[in-house]
Amino acid sequence: MQRTLIGKLGGQVGQTVSISGWVDVRRDHGKLLFLNIRDRSGKVQVICATNHPEALAEGQKLKPESVVRIEGVVNERPANMRTEGVNGNIEIEAVSIAVLAQAQELPFDMSASLNLDTYLDYLPLTMRTERGRAIFGVQATAIGAFRKALMKEQFTEFQSPALVGGDAEGGAAAFAVDYYYGEKAYLATSPQLYKQIMVGVFERVFSTPKVFRGEKHSTTRHLSEYSTLDFEMGFITDHRDVMAMLERVVRAMAEAVVSGHGDAFKLLGTKPPLVNAEPFPIMKLREAQKTLGVAEEPDLEPEHERAICEWAKKEKGSDFIFITHYPVSKRPFYTYEDEDDKGFTKSFDLLFRGLEITTGGQRVHDYDTLVQKALDKGLDPEKFAFYLQAFKYGMPPHGGSATGLERFTARMLNLPNVKEATLFPRDLNRIDTLLSQDTGKE
Amino acid sequence: MQRTLIGKLGGQVGQTVSISGWVDVRRDHGKLLFLNIRDRSGKVQVICATNHPEALAEGQKLKPESVVRIEGVVNERPANMRTEGVNGNIEIEAVSIAVLAQAQELPFDMSASLNLDTYLDYLPLTMRTERGRAIFGVQATAIGAFRKALMKEQFTEFQSPALVGGDAEGGAAAFAVDYYYGEKAYLATSPQLYKQIMVGVFERVFSTPKVFRGEKHSTTRHLSEYSTLDFEMGFITDHRDVMAMLERVVRAMAEAVVSGHGDAFKLLGTKPPLVNAEPFPIMKLREAQKTLGVAEEPDLEPEHERAICEWAKKEKGSDFIFITHYPVSKRPFYTYEDEDDKGFTKSFDLLFRGLEITTGGQRVHDYDTLVQKALDKGLDPEKFAFYLQAFKYGMPPHGGSATGLERFTARMLNLPNVKEATLFPRDLNRIDTLLSQDTGKE
Repeated sequence: MQRTLIGKLGGQVGQTVSISGWVDVRRDHGKLLFLNIRDRSGKVQVICATNHPEALAEGQKLKPESVVRIEGVVNERPANMRTEGVNGNIEIEAVSIAVLAQAQELPFDMSASLNLDTYLDYLPLTMRTERGRAIFGVQATAIGAFRKALMKEQFTEFQSPALVGGDAEGGAAAFAVDYYYGEKAYLATSPQLYKQIMVGVFERVFSTPKVFRGEKHSTTRHLSEYSTLDFEMGFITDHRDVMAMLERVVRAMAEAVVSGHGDAFKLLGTKPPLVNAEPFPIMKLREAQKTLGVAEEPDLEPEHERAICEWAKKEKGSDFIFITHYPVSKRPFYTYEDEDDKGFTKSFDLLFRGLEITTGGQRVHDYDTLVQKALDKGLDPEKFAFYLQAFKYGMPPHGGSATGLERFTARMLNLPNVKEATLFPRDLNRIDTLLSQDTGKE
Repeated sequence: MQRTLIGKLGGQVGQTVSISGWVDVRRDHGKLLFLNIRDRSGKVQVICATNHPEALAEGQKLKPESVVRIEGVVNERPANMRTEGVNGNIEIEAVSIAVLAQAQELPFDMSASLNLDTYLDYLPLTMRTERGRAIFGVQATAIGAFRKALMKEQFTEFQSPALVGGDAEGGAAAFAVDYYYGEKAYLATSPQLYKQIMVGVFERVFSTPKVFRGEKHSTTRHLSEYSTLDFEMGFITDHRDVMAMLERVVRAMAEAVVSGHGDAFKLLGTKPPLVNAEPFPIMKLREAQKTLGVAEEPDLEPEHERAICEWAKKEKGSDFIFITHYPVSKRPFYTYEDEDDKGFTKSFDLLFRGLEITTGGQRVHDYDTLVQKALDKGLDPEKFAFYLQAFKYGMPPHGGSATGLERFTARMLNLPNVKEATLFPRDLNRIDTLLSQDTGKE
C-alpha cells in the first residue's frame, strides 16, 4: 500500500492507510497501546488494541525512536478526546505494524530539558525534538528567503572559496591548513574580497558560504565555523543603498519565517520580530552612545548593543536598528570614509534584539585610494595583488553586507546561545564530540 | 537622472536616458567614437560625436573596462547598421559622460583566446568576458534549480560542517587544519555522514557545501575544493527511488539552464543536453563493460566512461546514463549490498557527456550491520560514535547522492577542463596566484 504522509491524513477518515515514521511517544496500558508517530509532515496518534493482536504484540516491543510502517484505519476521535492542532480530531487503529528499525533504549527522556553539553553530545538524537526541528526548519527557511529576495533583485549567486592564500584582511585569526608540498593555506574568514571581485563580473552578487574564525573566544555569540549571508552590489550612491537592500532582504526573511513557522515562536517562548518602523531606525554610533549616556568608544560594547535595542523597541517599535559611521580605525582598509564626516566610515551594523547580526557598508572603489588605505593600515598591497586587479581594471561604487545565519536564527527564536542555532557547532573544545581532555587548558 | 538598465532600453527610443556600466569595446575614429557599454542586463552601442564635444573628449580618454555613467538620447540605428540580438536596432547618442573609475591599460586583448594559466592569473578580469559570465551565470542557475527542485519535493536545507574531527570515510585524503591548543582538525571530504544524521531529523534533506580533497591529482577533472550538491532521503524502497529523484532534479537543472541561458550554448560551441530517454538509461557496471567489450574491473576507467556515454547518446538519444552495482570493495562501508546480487551494491554513478558527475546509492540503515560493515573495511567504529548515534536510535531505509556542481557545469557547456567551470580553482600549484616556485616538484 502506498505511504500516506501524516500531515495528509485529515481527509482520510474511514480509509485504510499506510503511514511510516518514528515512534515519538509510547504509552502502554497493557491491552491498549498508544503510539504517537512522527514523520516529516506531522504527528498522529495510533491505537493498538486486542482486536488486532499481532499489531498490539508488535507495538509493545517498540521503543521510542524506532522506525515503523503501520497500516490501519483512520477514525474520528471521540468528542471528549480531541486535542488542538493537526490530527487532533483523528487517530489510527493499527491493523499491522512493520518495524523498519528498532531503536535502543534512549539515554534520557526526550522531553527533558538538557544542559548544553549533553544536548551537543547527543545532537543526532536531540535535533529530532520538536524544538530542534523548529530551530533548523526556521534556519532553512531564512537562508532560502535570503537567496530568493536577492534573486528577485537580479543578484547572481557565486561559490566563494574556503581555502585562501592568507588572512588577507588581517583582522580575525585564520586557521592554517597543511596544503601540498609543505605549503600553508588558510581558511577564509569572510568572502569579502571575492564578492568585491565578482561585482566586476555580475554587478550584483551573493554567496552563502561557511567562514572560519580561529579566535579563542568562548562566548554565547562566537563560533569557529559559521554560515554567512553575503551580498555585494555595484552602482550605489552610498551605504544607504546597501542598507535599504538589506532591510528589504531581512524583512523578506522575517516574513518567510513568520508565515512558514508560526508555531516555532510559541514553542520557543518568543514572538515574531517587531518591525513597525519603516525604514528601520538608523543612528550614527556617536548618537547611539549619546542616547545611552555612555562614553564615545570606537565600537559598541555588548551591553550597549542590548541597551540601544531596548531603546529602539520601546521608542520605535522595532527589534532592528542600524548603527552607522564606525571610526576608520575600527573598520577594514576597504571601508569608504565619509567625506562629510572625516574619520568616520560609510559603514553600518544591523542589530537585532540586542545582538549585531550584520556588518556592511560602502567600499573604496578607486584603485589608488584602496592601495593607500591598505598601506595606512600597515598592510602590504602586494599580498592583495589578485584582488587589486579588479580595481585596476574598473570597479563601480559598490557596497554590501554580511549577516550571520546562526545569529539571525538565534535572535529570531530568542535562543540564549548561538550554538543552539548551529548544526554541529565547532568551538574551542568541540568538533561533534569533545576534543582531547587537555583542550581548554593552555 | 535615474539609471536605466541597458536591457530595458528597447522601449525608450527618442528618450534621454542615463546608463551606467563598463566600457566593453572602444573604437575611435577621431571625430566619431563608438563605445560598447555593458551592465548586468546587456550591452548597447554609444556614439560620441562632435555635436557634443565634451562627451567626445571625455570618451576619448576612456580605456576598456573603465566604469562610466552616460546620459544620452536613444536613437534607432540606420537600417543598414542594425545587428542581431538585444539593442541591435538602437544606439545612444552621448550627451555627457561621467567617469566613475578609469581603468588601466589591459594586459591583453579581452577577445584573445588565453592559455589556462594566464586566464587563471587574471581571473578578476577574465571572468568579465561574455564567456566567463556565461559559464558562471549557468552555474548560478544550476545550483538554484537544484535547491528549488528539492524544496518542491519537501526537502529541508541544512548547513553541513566543513571542519571535521577526522577523515572518517578513510578514502579521500583530507587536509589537516591547525585547530586550537595543538589539536588537528580536518576539512570535510563530503557531507555524507551529516546528511545521513539529518535524515533522522527531517527525513529529506539537502546541502550544497564546499568539500575538500587533498589527493595529489593533476587532471582536467579534479579540484582541491569544490561545490557538492547533496541530498539524502528516507523511507525509500531501494536505490532506484534515489535515482528517480536525482533524475527529476537533474532534468529541472538542465531545463532551467536551457531556458535561462540559451545563448550560452551557442557561445560555448555546444548544444543543450540530449534527454530523449525517459528514464535515463540504466546499466549495471558489468553490463556496461560487456557492452564495451572490456574486462570486468571494479570501476570504469575514464575512457570507458566516455565510451559508454557515446553509446547512450547514439543508441538511446541520452547525454546521461546511470551505471549501477559497483562492487562492495569499491564503495564506502555504509553502502547497501544487494541481497539479490551478492558482492555488488545498490549504488550508482550518473555519467553526463563522458564524465561521472554524481555518485549515490542506498545506505545501510541497520545499526549492527553498519558497525559490521565498518569493521569489514578495517575501520574503527569508535571513531564514528557520533554518527552511529543516529542508527542506534532508529533510522529508516534511506539513500542519496552527491553531484559536483563544477563538473555538471563543465559538461553542460562542454568545457574541456573543470577548472574553467570553477570560480577561483584551487589545485596543487595554485590558490588564486601560483604558490611558491618549488611547488609541483616533489
